Amino acid sequence: MSKPVILVTNDDGIISPGIRALVEVAQHFGDVVVVAPDSPQSGMGHAITIHDPLRIQKVSIFDDLGIPAYQCSGTPVDCVKIAIDKIIKRKPDLCVSGINHGSNAAINVIYSGTMSAAMEAAIDGIPAIGFSILDYTFDADFSAAKVYAKSIIQNMMNVGLLPDALLNVNIPKLPLDEIKGIKICRQANAKWKEEFDERRDPSGKNYYWLIGNFVNNDQGEDTDAWALDNGYVSIVPVQFDLTHHHAISFINKNWNL
Amino acid sequence: MSKPVILVTNDDGIISPGIRALVEVAQHFGDVVVVAPDSPQSGMGHAITIHDPLRIQKVSIFDDLGIPAYQCSGTPVDCVKIAIDKIIKRKPDLCVSGINHGSNAAINVIYSGTMSAAMEAAIDGIPAIGFSILDYTFDADFSAAKVYAKSIIQNMMNVGLLPDALLNVNIPKLPLDEIKGIKICRQANAKWKEEFDERRDPSGKNYYWLIGNFVNNDQGEDTDAWALDNGYVSIVPVQFDLTHHHAISFINKNWNL
Repeated sequence: MSKPVILVTNDDGIISPGIRALVEVAQHFGDVVVVAPDSPQSGMGHAITIHDPLRIQKVSIFDDLGIPAYQCSGTPVDCVKIAIDKIIKRKPDLCVSGINHGSNAAINVIYSGTMSAAMEAAIDGIPAIGFSILDYTFDADFSAAKVYAKSIIQNMMNVGLLPDALLNVNIPKLPLDEIKGIKICRQANAKWKEEFDERRDPSGKNYYWLIGNFVNNDQGEDTDAWALDNGYVSIVPVQFDLTHHHAISFINKNWNL
Repeated sequence: MSKPVILVTNDDGIISPGIRALVEVAQHFGDVVVVAPDSPQSGMGHAITIHDPLRIQKVSIFDDLGIPAYQCSGTPVDCVKIAIDKIIKRKPDLCVSGINHGSNAAINVIYSGTMSAAMEAAIDGIPAIGFSILDYTFDADFSAAKVYAKSIIQNMMNVGLLPDALLNVNIPKLPLDEIKGIKICRQANAKWKEEFDERRDPSGKNYYWLIGNFVNNDQGEDTDAWALDNGYVSIVPVQFDLTHHHAISFINKNWNL
């Protein structure tokens, strides 16, 4: 019986340490292929490249692990699409994305290229998980994250999940022995308050850097934000059917169309 | 009493006829401000610009309607954020996005910059609607779309909606008297099958254009795809809490973590 094929991607780019950590975990479970952006793609959400063509290039970055790897000029979602159509040439048995340098908990799931890559796989019927660690630094310590990623991937491979769900896994910035375990959570109702840093260029014109402040007004103890604040790994099952079913009946009852 | 402030944006860019059609409708309901991308941003999903600064410029394109307008170098989501923080300098009372040239029904909601702009507003607590017409052409006929947009905006302003919902409105490519009415729908379970057109550049290297094929295997008659195929305007209420609640209990019951 042939081994499962596992697609590994991310949004921080193919040279980020986080994707290497995830490749090292994934290779316990099957034949890994890496297809990841050739440059950082954080905050790209579910963007796809329509107005430009894409390039892919085989790279040697994972030769030491015996893993084929391709960098792509597009977004994380592009990487998943082109991996299936042009590189693997079939659907992989699993897609894992990350490990992202930085949180994708709460509303970040919507902005995250890491999570959008996993969602793209899930839309295509592929079991999919996005992993993130709450440490933005290049030299983040992934040792605890790798232990949890292995356990979660094991369950995904052995037990599976509902066909219209994927997972958003976030791991606190803690050593393994200080992590209290895993909580299965809902997405915290938190958001970014928009804020821009206004500057003036040498020719006197204004330009703006997006900064923003994370605001969590959700007091629930069943959220990913709560779990992470309290030393747990958070797993939020995520859906790509965005229908707000309660609002259907609200409109049918109250609107005059 | 001061009039409501209405932010109008889109993803096709500030010069597209679709946004002009929407501005003409919106100005019946309040003081309109346009903040839209300076170039086409279709397929940008919920992307935000992190690695580059943004530029905004006041433009005269809607002077004939007496409407202030700004073009922004960023994505549709960036437009909403910078409009609130730097242009309007408060939350608008309504955000409408579109009218998009092309369908945002079914899974397109996830890839759509038009819908992501509306979602960004909704996350911020602003009533929000994205409008799209099933006609990709520059000279699409928006006359029927404007009639329906007016009725829908009227209900949003007068009755309102649940605070964690926004609307995805799609309008068939039909004259007004052939549209059968409005259906409040769920998102069809359809997807794009990835497909790339492979070409060779003058130096002999391959490059790839994303094409893709839309596949709808959802036979339900309560979907947006069904409504549009049958001559109705579709309204799908959309949520930004992506939690798959059934999967929480599935994991708690079946997984061994």
